[in-house]
Amino acid sequence: MSVVVVGTVGIDDIATPSGQVTEVLGGSATYAAMASRLFAPTTITSVVGADFPDAHRQTLASRDIDLGGIEVAEGKTFRWGGRYHDDLNTRDTEFVDLNVVADFQPHVPLASASNGFVFLGNTAPGVQMSVLDQVDDESFVVTDSMNFWIEGQGEALTDVFRRSSFVVLNDQEVRMFSRVQSLPDAVAHILRLGPQAVAVKRGEYGAALAAGDEWFFTPGYPLPEVVDPTGAGDAFAGAMLGSIAEAGEANQATMRRAIVYGSVAASYTVEAFGTDRLVTLTRAEVDARYRAFRRLVEF
Amino acid sequence: MSVVVVGTVGIDDIATPSGQVTEVLGGSATYAAMASRLFAPTTITSVVGADFPDAHRQTLASRDIDLGGIEVAEGKTFRWGGRYHDDLNTRDTEFVDLNVVADFQPHVPLASASNGFVFLGNTAPGVQMSVLDQVDDESFVVTDSMNFWIEGQGEALTDVFRRSSFVVLNDQEVRMFSRVQSLPDAVAHILRLGPQAVAVKRGEYGAALAAGDEWFFTPGYPLPEVVDPTGAGDAFAGAMLGSIAEAGEANQATMRRAIVYGSVAASYTVEAFGTDRLVTLTRAEVDARYRAFRRLVEF
Repeated sequence: MSVVVVGTVGIDDIATPSGQVTEVLGGSATYAAMASRLFAPTTITSVVGADFPDAHRQTLASRDIDLGGIEVAEGKTFRWGGRYHDDLNTRDTEFVDLNVVADFQPHVPLASASNGFVFLGNTAPGVQMSVLDQVDDESFVVTDSMNFWIEGQGEALTDVFRRSSFVVLNDQEVRMFSRVQSLPDAVAHILRLGPQAVAVKRGEYGAALAAGDEWFFTPGYPLPEVVDPTGAGDAFAGAMLGSIAEAGEANQATMRRAIVYGSVAASYTVEAFGTDRLVTLTRAEVDARYRAFRRLVEF
Repeated sequence: MSVVVVGTVGIDDIATPSGQVTEVLGGSATYAAMASRLFAPTTITSVVGADFPDAHRQTLASRDIDLGGIEVAEGKTFRWGGRYHDDLNTRDTEFVDLNVVADFQPHVPLASASNGFVFLGNTAPGVQMSVLDQVDDESFVVTDSMNFWIEGQGEALTDVFRRSSFVVLNDQEVRMFSRVQSLPDAVAHILRLGPQAVAVKRGEYGAALAAGDEWFFTPGYPLPEVVDPTGAGDAFAGAMLGSIAEAGEANQATMRRAIVYGSVAASYTVEAFGTDRLVTLTRAEVDARYRAFRRLVEF
């Protein structure tokens, strides 16, 4: 089964305690697709400007990611600049130039609109809803969001969650959206809206899955050095959805494995700047670390 | 094999978002022993004042905890008052009256000084060192501490860690002691001092074990309501050491199980105020939740 990733493709400037890079390939759809492609054929639905570097396009294409859904619009490509604090858990956004993304109207490829696996990357709830209107009820839709939309467009986001199969947020976002301090209560609030499952990203503490009446937890991989956290959450979601698409269905067993694959992808992503590690990542490396994750929790 | 717990036995006032209690049984040795006694015969080495309520003594004795090592000194019993913030992760200490604990000179029972299992609860490094001087090299010593001693008596604490078998700290304390941001690097620093293992308490995120070149992680148990976090860390350490004493030796397998048993005890502890839940806790309940922890990480 194939995956459609809807989100941004952009150009990033990143500074971390380990160094800095400028004008590197970035965006939520980029990271998600780079991880998803390790499990299932992956198409990106996005928009770039005429200035999008050919080298970045080649990087994506070289990983067998289908770029047919990337529209080239008049104007400039989405750009983001961020600087991480010493603890790597917080960052300052130095600039966000939406550029062509401001008027983005995603079009889901017809072949993917039925019974497919869709990742709704972090964008305006209205844009996410327009994708939901294009796919049928048999589609498996994983939806991401962030504090900006939770605070500013909570109602529209609630409608998106109602129609999503699977919601992925970090723990602060879960609490902020549900307005409850207890994580189990906050997650239960989202599950009552309709999604089959909620994945909670917890940074260095790993990730949690709530599905049915069961919880599942996986730790963060103990890395001596985190070079750049950018894109880890998107890579997590991309690998998670990709592995569910590979399995062909979302049940307790495939979703648990998907959370581990997501954690594996995130742990590799942060080992280098931008997409550098994801680009070279192989399925054999993924599977080796997947086995290491099992040993991390074995008793 | 039996366990000796060295630490405070006191009287606590506790306020949390769920309510408040006054003059309840507290202290690091109390919580640790209440958890350890579920696995192995347990003796407390501590000191109380002449004002220590008989009801509190009865509570401890009713759980088969050996109180022969609790000295009754002239003066008042140790008292602590704390108020938790809404997120339960932070608290204000409202008062600490050391009272008879200020001059505490622990005496390890002769029967426990050789080849035993010892918990050095959070006290002054000098007091901890005096216990280390009383036990032989075959003893298995688990040492706890806190930010106050790390900041003020780091060198003395380093000497205590050098002679400990196992160090247990929370993640901020590990980083503060080692002066490194990366948790793997910070833990490696402590392991190089000599301990066989380090357990890292991570609050709602569970716990980690670093032993040899292996990591092990267990999540926090997903509780809908945390009533009172007081003593969770001490109960964790007590159950951990108790289960190692029950197993008779500390190896990779018994230490991993010990971390899970510690997490089980901590998760029960926070379900009620003070020691209320620990007092009624049975081994059957512990083993049921131990199995639930396995399911939480199974994939």
